[in-house]
Amino acid sequence: MSLINTEKPVIVLDERRCKRNIKKMAAKAESTGCLLRPHFKTHQSIEIGSWFKEAGIREITVSSTGMASYFASAGWNNITIAFPFFRQQLPALSSLENQARLRLFINSTDDLEFLDEELANPFEVIIEINPGYGRSGIHYLDSDTISKLIKTCRQLSKPKFHGFYVHDGRTYQAKNKKEVENIIKPTMNILNNLKGKFPGATLSLGDTPSASVLDHFPGIDELTPGNFVFYDWMQTQIGSCNLDDVALFALFPVAQYFRKENRAIIHGGATHLSKDLVYTNGKQNYGQLLNISTSSVNSVDHSFVTALSQEHGTISGLPDHFDKGSVWICPIHSCLTANLYDHYITTEGRRIEKRILS
Amino acid sequence: MSLINTEKPVIVLDERRCKRNIKKMAAKAESTGCLLRPHFKTHQSIEIGSWFKEAGIREITVSSTGMASYFASAGWNNITIAFPFFRQQLPALSSLENQARLRLFINSTDDLEFLDEELANPFEVIIEINPGYGRSGIHYLDSDTISKLIKTCRQLSKPKFHGFYVHDGRTYQAKNKKEVENIIKPTMNILNNLKGKFPGATLSLGDTPSASVLDHFPGIDELTPGNFVFYDWMQTQIGSCNLDDVALFALFPVAQYFRKENRAIIHGGATHLSKDLVYTNGKQNYGQLLNISTSSVNSVDHSFVTALSQEHGTISGLPDHFDKGSVWICPIHSCLTANLYDHYITTEGRRIEKRILS
Repeated sequence: MSLINTEKPVIVLDERRCKRNIKKMAAKAESTGCLLRPHFKTHQSIEIGSWFKEAGIREITVSSTGMASYFASAGWNNITIAFPFFRQQLPALSSLENQARLRLFINSTDDLEFLDEELANPFEVIIEINPGYGRSGIHYLDSDTISKLIKTCRQLSKPKFHGFYVHDGRTYQAKNKKEVENIIKPTMNILNNLKGKFPGATLSLGDTPSASVLDHFPGIDELTPGNFVFYDWMQTQIGSCNLDDVALFALFPVAQYFRKENRAIIHGGATHLSKDLVYTNGKQNYGQLLNISTSSVNSVDHSFVTALSQEHGTISGLPDHFDKGSVWICPIHSCLTANLYDHYITTEGRRIEKRILS
Repeated sequence: MSLINTEKPVIVLDERRCKRNIKKMAAKAESTGCLLRPHFKTHQSIEIGSWFKEAGIREITVSSTGMASYFASAGWNNITIAFPFFRQQLPALSSLENQARLRLFINSTDDLEFLDEELANPFEVIIEINPGYGRSGIHYLDSDTISKLIKTCRQLSKPKFHGFYVHDGRTYQAKNKKEVENIIKPTMNILNNLKGKFPGATLSLGDTPSASVLDHFPGIDELTPGNFVFYDWMQTQIGSCNLDDVALFALFPVAQYFRKENRAIIHGGATHLSKDLVYTNGKQNYGQLLNISTSSVNSVDHSFVTALSQEHGTISGLPDHFDKGSVWICPIHSCLTANLYDHYITTEGRRIEKRILS
């Protein structure tokens, strides 16, 4: 592959694997009776979005009005903005509501009244549920606030209550499939209890580990994972996927090789990988070294990016007599790595444009 | 300021402070007899570069050929590429050498011979010295390799040996000025010893903490700091600057406020701040909350970004009855934060373009 001589750090997309991930998740959603509303924050590419369309996907999830506008411009007309609504979004939403049916995360009756007044069209309301770990949303035990929100939706003309959503970020800390299950099952119970209290609500689950690991989603109506489109090293460590499912790789030139120390400096730093990390044998791992041939992708044991500055990466634990001019790195967190580039290069050498600014 | 109603996360530049930082560092270089060759990787903006020109700067430092091309296009014609040379850079260097006098970091005699053959014009050679902490460069005790490199420069027609360079990254871990001094003084001794062995070599020091904290640089000929143009929260904690010197701030909308928990969710995540962090009272601090008025900038004690996902930030430890629609955040590491945006907004509301891709 001529890519091997790249001077600039690039991210390389395995189109076949990516499409397979999309189809697999679409098939799982169908077989489990869930609607797949994939989160597009990971790939942020209109072209990759079109691969979802080919897999029958019609409704998507994003995390900002900017991302919603980007995908609306490509014809996506049913969009969930999976981020707590805040009033500065109004001008963007007023423009977006002409292009797409919107589903918004609302946390207060004041905001419902505000939007009922300010928006022109009906919109759907999702109540984000905090299952106890506490990022955003309404705490699952706060029935009072939840009741008021649903009641207010009924009283107003534009907001339509749709259901409950949880993105349980704790599953990203799981060490294996069993741990993912142990984290997400109580969360699914929380959602089902809410459905019991508020009949007619749909239930939506957001995280990639749960969507990947579980084969049944009792009571759940919708899945909105994003990361699965590429997966990454973190997901292989959780057990969400195998290395053979990972579809995004970084290709970095080697700038200096220290033979005696089994160490190399690569042109691939924090601005090319992000500083997200996992711990491997107690050491910080900012990117896993891979051995990629035309027929296989393997990780190189004990060899990973152990330090990152702005433009430099340090790979430690290299095999003896390592003599490569470039290295393939499996990103730890593909969402953050992809965010640093304005395009992908496919393994066939084709350029795929993407949005760069969050 | 109308900025306060921004929907999108923005980074705001205090032009007056930035220009003052530039002038101060230029004055310090002059008073200490050092040439200032500032690193432009932090701001990556042609306009901000022009402020250096106004301060008398004629020679600059960058960390990639792409960054060199960007600044060469604005007329900078004396450029150090402070990154180990690797052969994939050749096409870019062949083009660059027509626009600028180049100063390259070379680690092997093979590379010197390669460039002597492949480049058209003379170029200057810097030997990056590893003072013991081990990122890139040649270990300071490896006199053999250093001798061979200098000798090869003499034998060939195009490479001209210029001197030694150290970027001592350990100073970024210092907790106060005294620690910076304790780290950098032995490193300056190492450089001076090399100058003793290899007379005529110039000595260059790269890190912002040393350039900021020290008032004398015995034997040192050049300074190449970059971060000082903006500084950041990390530098205030090291003692490189005061908060009044910090010239770059992030402005993020508040999306959800938890009054009882003194906590808020902001639209400002890892893709808006980077995941670089310091520890404050033992807790991860991804961004320090500031109180900014027209006349002053103060940090809000115990209030900082304690968690980051792709688009969400969590601020903990908020003061009681916090009711702001937006928050000002002091970035932990301004180089990585600035890298995530394609422009700055000045405190006067003016847009300043910048390069986005590393």
